[in-house]
Amino acid sequence: MITFKEAYQKVLAHPIDLGTENVSLLNSLNRILAEDIYADRDFPPFDRATKDGVAIQFSDFVNNGHSFKIEGVAAAGVIQQVLKDKNNCLEVMTGAVVPLHCDTVVMYEHITIEGGKVTINEKVNKGQNIHYQGSDEKVGALLLSKGKKISPAEIGVMATVGKVTVKIKGNPKICTIATGNELVEVNETPRPHQIRKSNMLTIESALLSSKIEASSLHLLDDKKEIERELEKALQDNDVLLLSGGVSKGKFDFIPEVMESLGVEKVFHRVLQRPGKPFWFGIHHKMKTVIFSFPGNPVSTFANYHLYFLAWLQTSWQLPLDNSYIKLSAAIKITQPLTRFIQVSTEVKEGMFWATPVVENGSGDLTSLAKADGFICLEPRNKEYEVGEAVPFVKTR
Amino acid sequence: MITFKEAYQKVLAHPIDLGTENVSLLNSLNRILAEDIYADRDFPPFDRATKDGVAIQFSDFVNNGHSFKIEGVAAAGVIQQVLKDKNNCLEVMTGAVVPLHCDTVVMYEHITIEGGKVTINEKVNKGQNIHYQGSDEKVGALLLSKGKKISPAEIGVMATVGKVTVKIKGNPKICTIATGNELVEVNETPRPHQIRKSNMLTIESALLSSKIEASSLHLLDDKKEIERELEKALQDNDVLLLSGGVSKGKFDFIPEVMESLGVEKVFHRVLQRPGKPFWFGIHHKMKTVIFSFPGNPVSTFANYHLYFLAWLQTSWQLPLDNSYIKLSAAIKITQPLTRFIQVSTEVKEGMFWATPVVENGSGDLTSLAKADGFICLEPRNKEYEVGEAVPFVKTR
Repeated sequence: MITFKEAYQKVLAHPIDLGTENVSLLNSLNRILAEDIYADRDFPPFDRATKDGVAIQFSDFVNNGHSFKIEGVAAAGVIQQVLKDKNNCLEVMTGAVVPLHCDTVVMYEHITIEGGKVTINEKVNKGQNIHYQGSDEKVGALLLSKGKKISPAEIGVMATVGKVTVKIKGNPKICTIATGNELVEVNETPRPHQIRKSNMLTIESALLSSKIEASSLHLLDDKKEIERELEKALQDNDVLLLSGGVSKGKFDFIPEVMESLGVEKVFHRVLQRPGKPFWFGIHHKMKTVIFSFPGNPVSTFANYHLYFLAWLQTSWQLPLDNSYIKLSAAIKITQPLTRFIQVSTEVKEGMFWATPVVENGSGDLTSLAKADGFICLEPRNKEYEVGEAVPFVKTR
Repeated sequence: MITFKEAYQKVLAHPIDLGTENVSLLNSLNRILAEDIYADRDFPPFDRATKDGVAIQFSDFVNNGHSFKIEGVAAAGVIQQVLKDKNNCLEVMTGAVVPLHCDTVVMYEHITIEGGKVTINEKVNKGQNIHYQGSDEKVGALLLSKGKKISPAEIGVMATVGKVTVKIKGNPKICTIATGNELVEVNETPRPHQIRKSNMLTIESALLSSKIEASSLHLLDDKKEIERELEKALQDNDVLLLSGGVSKGKFDFIPEVMESLGVEKVFHRVLQRPGKPFWFGIHHKMKTVIFSFPGNPVSTFANYHLYFLAWLQTSWQLPLDNSYIKLSAAIKITQPLTRFIQVSTEVKEGMFWATPVVENGSGDLTSLAKADGFICLEPRNKEYEVGEAVPFVKTR
C-alpha cells in the first residue's frame, strides 16, 4: 500500500490533454478561459461625461460668476457635439461624448438654469467629471488571461470587447459507473436486501456543478457483462469514475477486468480512511484515465474531491487550490492512515473554522449533507490543536 | 437621501411570495429545498457487511483456533442467507445482508482458507464489521430540512430515499433591462460614441449562477417606447432589474415613467458610493418589484449583490449571509457615504483577507474582473485598521 501523498502525486502525474472548445458568451460562464482577452479599443473609448449637467471650456472666468448660454444638448449615443463659442456651454448627459472644445463638466446639482443661461454655484476644477479615453485600459491591453475561471465579471468584460464566441478549456468525456447487484434505480422500491443508487448521482451532480455533463452506467456483478461494458466505456470516454467493486470480494471483478482490457494499474489501495481500496489506472492506447473509488458513499465523495478534482485542475493546467482552515476541536490522528474528515465550516470575524461532523462511518450517506467539506490530516504523534490551520477541500 | 442601512431595510421589507416548483432530482441541484426529506426506511436498511470475508456466529471457541467449514456465499444484492450450523460460516461480501444466525464478520485479510475451511488468524470481536440496520438514521427521521441549498450531497440523500421529483422554492420571473441610446449589441462594432451592452449581460450571468434564467430588454431613450415596454414588463415579471436612466439627465425617464405606470417609489438616491442614484419601487397591484440601478458597471454590480441578492434570500425566507473578512490595508471612510469597495480575497492559514482592487472609478468595467467581492464600509471617524473584520459580499 502507498501513502496518500504518493497516490496523490501519481494521480497528478497522469493529466490528459483536454483541448479547447468554442462556445457562445453566456455558455462560457463558470468554464475556464482558454484564450487571452485584449481591449479592442480604449476604455472608455472616448472622453465620457460621468455626470448629467453642462460641458464647458474651462477659463479663468469660470469661477467668477460668469453665466453660460446653452448652445444645445449632447446626449449619450450621439456623435460628438461641438461647442461653438467658448463663452457658452452644452448640456451633457452621463455616458455622452464630451463635446469638442469642452474640457470640464459641471453637474446639474451645482448650477442654476434660468432663461437659457447657466449660472455656476460651486467651485469648478478644470477637467472634472470626465472619464478620460483610455484611462481604464488602452487598446491592446491584456484584460483577461487564459486559465481564468469565467464569472459574471468576466462575461461583462468579454461582452464589452465583442466576444460573441469564447474559447474555453475542454471538458473530459466522463462516464460514471455504479457497480453491484444490490443497487436499484431511484424510482424503484428496493426490496429488503437492496438499496437505491445514490453514489453516482451524487458524483454526476458534483460534475454538473463543474459544468460537466457525464453519462452513466450500472454494471451488475457479472464478469462477462463488466468486460463488455468496460471495453466500450474505455473507448468512448476520457475518464471513467467507478464506485464499488474494488475490494477483496468474490465479485469485485473491476481490477482484474481492467487489467485484462489493457489498463495499466497505477496503484491499488492507499493508506487512507475513508477509501483504502481506491484503484487508479490508465489505458495508454485509448488515453482513458480510470478512478475506481470504493463503494461507500463517504469514500466515493472524499476521493472524488481529493483526487479527481485535483487531477482535473492539473489537466486544465491550472494551479491547485491549497485552502487551509482552522480546527475548532483537537484531533488525534494515529499512524498509519491519512484521514479525510467531514467538517462543517463557519466564517467568524474573518477566520475560517472547521468542526468535525458526527458520522457513523464511511457508509453513512446522510452525514454528507451535514458537511461542507473534508479536512485532510496526515498521521502524526502530536495532536492537531484547536486553532491550527489544516488542509481543506470544500464539497459545496 | 437615505442611508445605506435605511435603503437596505426598505428593500428587505418588500419580499414577494415566490411559491414552489416541482423538478426532477438532478434539476434541483443548487436550488433551495421547499420540503422536508425523511428517511423512507432505516439507514442502512439491513445489517450490512462492511468488509469482504466470512460471517460467523460468535462463540467462545472463535478465538481458540477453531476452523469453520464454508456453507456458501452471501453476495450483495441477494436476499438474506441463513447459516445452518453455528460451527460453520458463510462467505459474505461488502454490502450484503449479514446472514441469519450470524453476528460477526471477519475480513479476508484476517483468515486463511484451505480445503473449504476457514482458519481465523486475528482476534475477533463480537459484532465487528457490521453496519447495523438503522444505526445512521431510523425510518421517519428528518434527513434534510426545507430551506437547505441543494448540493451534490443532498442529491445523494434524496436519491437514497427515492425522491424522483423534488419540491423547491420558486424563482422570480425577471427581466433585465438595459437603457440608453449609446448601447449596441455584443456582436456589433460600436461607432466611436457607442459602447457594447455589457452591464445586463453581467447581471444575466450572475442570475444564471443562481440558476435563474432571465429575459432581457433594451430600451432606447424614448419616453413613449419606455412607457410601452415597461408597462408590458411590469405585467409579465416579478422583478425588473434596470441599469441606467435614473440620474438627473434629460433622458432619464425611468423614475417618471415608473410612477406614471402606478409604481410606488420606495426610495430614490442613497448615501452610498458607487450607486448613489439607485431607485427602488414596487407595483402593488401587479406585485412587481423594481430595482433600477445606476448605469455604471461597478454600481450595477455592487447594488445587484448588496440589495437584490439579499432581497432574493428574504423572499425565499432564508437567513441572510453575514460574512466578514479581514482587511489587509487600512482604509479611511469619511462622512457621509457608505462605501462598497472591490477587493480581491485570499485565504491564508485559515484567515480570510481582503485587499482593495486598484480601480478607476465606478465606470471601470475591467476592474470587476480583478475583484472577488465587495467590502461594505460605513463612514466613521476612526480609520478601518489592518486585520479588522468588515462585512463582505462575494461576487464570484
